[in-house]
Formats: sequence, structure tokens, C-alpha cells
Amino acid sequence: MVNYPNGRSRPYQHAPKKEKSLTELSVTKKRADKLKSSVAFGKRGMNFEAEINATNEYYLSHGMAVIHKKPTPIQIVKVDYPRRSRAKITEAYFRQASTTDYSGVYKGRYIDFEAKETHQKTVFPLKNFHEHQIVHMSNVLAQAGIAFVLLHFATLDETYLLPSSYLIKFYREKQGLKSIPIDYIREKGYKIETHQIPRIPYLEIVNKLCEVN
Amino acid sequence: MVNYPNGRSRPYQHAPKKEKSLTELSVTKKRADKLKSSVAFGKRGMNFEAEINATNEYYLSHGMAVIHKKPTPIQIVKVDYPRRSRAKITEAYFRQASTTDYSGVYKGRYIDFEAKETHQKTVFPLKNFHEHQIVHMSNVLAQAGIAFVLLHFATLDETYLLPSSYLIKFYREKQGLKSIPIDYIREKGYKIETHQIPRIPYLEIVNKLCEVN
Repeated sequence: MVNYPNGRSRPYQHAPKKEKSLTELSVTKKRADKLKSSVAFGKRGMNFEAEINATNEYYLSHGMAVIHKKPTPIQIVKVDYPRRSRAKITEAYFRQASTTDYSGVYKGRYIDFEAKETHQKTVFPLKNFHEHQIVHMSNVLAQAGIAFVLLHFATLDETYLLPSSYLIKFYREKQGLKSIPIDYIREKGYKIETHQIPRIPYLEIVNKLCEVN
Repeated sequence: MVNYPNGRSRPYQHAPKKEKSLTELSVTKKRADKLKSSVAFGKRGMNFEAEINATNEYYLSHGMAVIHKKPTPIQIVKVDYPRRSRAKITEAYFRQASTTDYSGVYKGRYIDFEAKETHQKTVFPLKNFHEHQIVHMSNVLAQAGIAFVLLHFATLDETYLLPSSYLIKFYREKQGLKSIPIDYIREKGYKIETHQIPRIPYLEIVNKLCEVN
């Protein structure tokens, strides 16, 4: 694997939460442009989610894995059916996801993960994970799926893969705590070297996990 | 496995295509009611998609598999952020799915499928499947995932599991044909006995497929 210099001179731009779905959209639309620019310009200012999507594109196009982000769940209230044109949704709301954002297949195995980032430097806030996501991860593990979270510390510019088992354990045992200390993540998780192509090469860690299991 | 009498006195009610997402929504909301009524009233008039969702609920609640329907992909154009209330989407459109509708994990293996129904009696129209879904299924098979389609002939009240490999083969080799003859589906696929709980017990067929592979 060739290592590329890190073209970034500043942390990932953090898209405002409200615009998440719009960001996601433009990501899908501009896929081709992005893949091109990823080589040419080193993805300056690309946000964490976009880098993961680009990584998944890389894995897909190289026949290494099939991992997709699920569409954002939307609660539709009103739809118009104008004549001679397609259905138009005129009232809808964002819904909370009942599962994790990413899933797919790698060498026959089921892969399931959630990706989150924080600007904190010493802890990762637990509010990033909802109870039903924790339950979903437990269900996946019970079915022998591979489940983890990708945690990005934007200010430190460090990214970790933490197996879901450790997240669940911490979440269940430390209900009183509002965040996971970075030391726990460093001890139980795996640091991902992001200065290469693909940018978030999490499958290298998954290989290790499969050997361990 | 206990067999229950088929409480249905007429074919599945076919929800109009335009309202698919609204149907899906109410399905999610009324989950509890539905699971209850499924036992009490034999799900009269329940549509095919709802029966699959109920089957997946059954598998999940019995710890047998974790399979979810992906949210309908929506292209968001305009969002309002009214004060003191949540974001309201005021213009959006349905997008074509780039993958299949259902995916999840069963005994560590990745499961991926699409479910479609027709009112035809002798053929299944190929227009139900888009080129990129065929590509997606090929990608999943290349990663050793388990991929198939569930085909429901509403008028005949017959449901088949057809491994994606045969759908892809037919789709690629018979580009001129607009539909798959039911004989091909009966020869290459597996009939699912739907007169029981869960209603579409496709995992029984998946077990056979895993033994074959």
C-alpha cells in the first residue's frame, strides 16, 4: 500500500448537523468529481462522513467490499401528485435512525458500523449514540456480525476503530458517565492511519479483528 | 414449526406504487398493533412488503436474524427551520434506490434481497429490477454475500425465492425479453410456503442455499 502525504492543512470541515442530509445528497451526486479530486487535491476540508463514503467507493470500485450508507430516514406527511410530473413531497421530517448508518459485506461477513466525530480532545460524548443503536449493535454481534464504530477526534485529527462490544460494555456499565475517555478508546480500539488512499482504511483493522475472533 | 391455517380469503391488497413510502411509514408506526393482529386475525389483506417486514420483526424478536428494510431514498431540496420546532422538509422527491431494499446478518453471513410482486400469472416482468440493482447483486455475490429476490405472484398467491445468480444470468443473457417465465422461476428458485408464522419464512430456504454453497 502506497502512502500519500496528507494534503490537509486544517481539520475536517464539520457540516452543521441540520444539513447532514443535504450534504449526503451532494456527495452522491458529485461522486465522480470527488473521486477525481481526491487524487488531485488531497481532499482538503472534506468532512469525516464524506471521507468514509469516498473510502467505501474505493473499496467498491476495487472489488474489496460492498459497504453503503443507508438513506436518511424521513417521515413523510404530505405528497403532491402534480399532473405530468413526478410526486413531490411537501411536508416531511427527519427521523431518528433505528440502526447504524453503514452496513455491507466483506468476504462473506456482515459489516455494520456507525461513524461519529467530536471536537473534544480527551473524551468522546456518549450522546452521539442512541439506545436503539446500542441494541442494534448487540443484535448484530449476537448474529456473529462484525460491528464497530469509527470515532474521529477532529481537533486532534485522530481516528479510531472501536469494536462495538467495548462501546456496549462501556455504555451499559457506565450509565452515569456522559462520555468515553480517549484513554479507553486508545486501549480497546485501533488507531487508523488516515494519511493514505483510501483515506479511512478501516478494512485493515477489520482483518485484524477477524483473526482475533 | 407449527403450521397455521391461512386466514386470508383474498389476495394481498396491492398498495398503489406512489404511496409506498407512506405505507412503509404506517407499517413502522403500527408495528405493535400489527404483530398482535397477525396472530389474532391472520393478516387479511396485508400487502407483500408488510408481510416481509413482519417476518423480519419475527426473526429479530426471536434472535434468529437481523434484517432491516432500508429507508426510502429521498432527494431533499428545501428545508425550513422554524423557531422552537424541528426542521421541516418542504420540498423533496423520491429517488431510485441504488441497492436492494433489504439487508442484514444471519449467522455471521451477509444477507441481501429485493422483494417484488406481480399480478401476472405466467411471467415476472423484468422492469421490476433496475440495472444498478443487478450490478449491486453481482457485487454482493462477488463478496460471497447471500443474495436473492423474493417474487410474489399475487393472483396465484405463490411466493418464490430466486437466488440472484439466476436473476442476473437471465437478465444478462435475455436482454431482449421483458419478463421471466414462471417456469424458469419454478425450476431455479424455491417455493416458499406462506401459510404459517412467520408468513414468509425465507430463512429456511437460505439454510438450504448455505448447504449448497
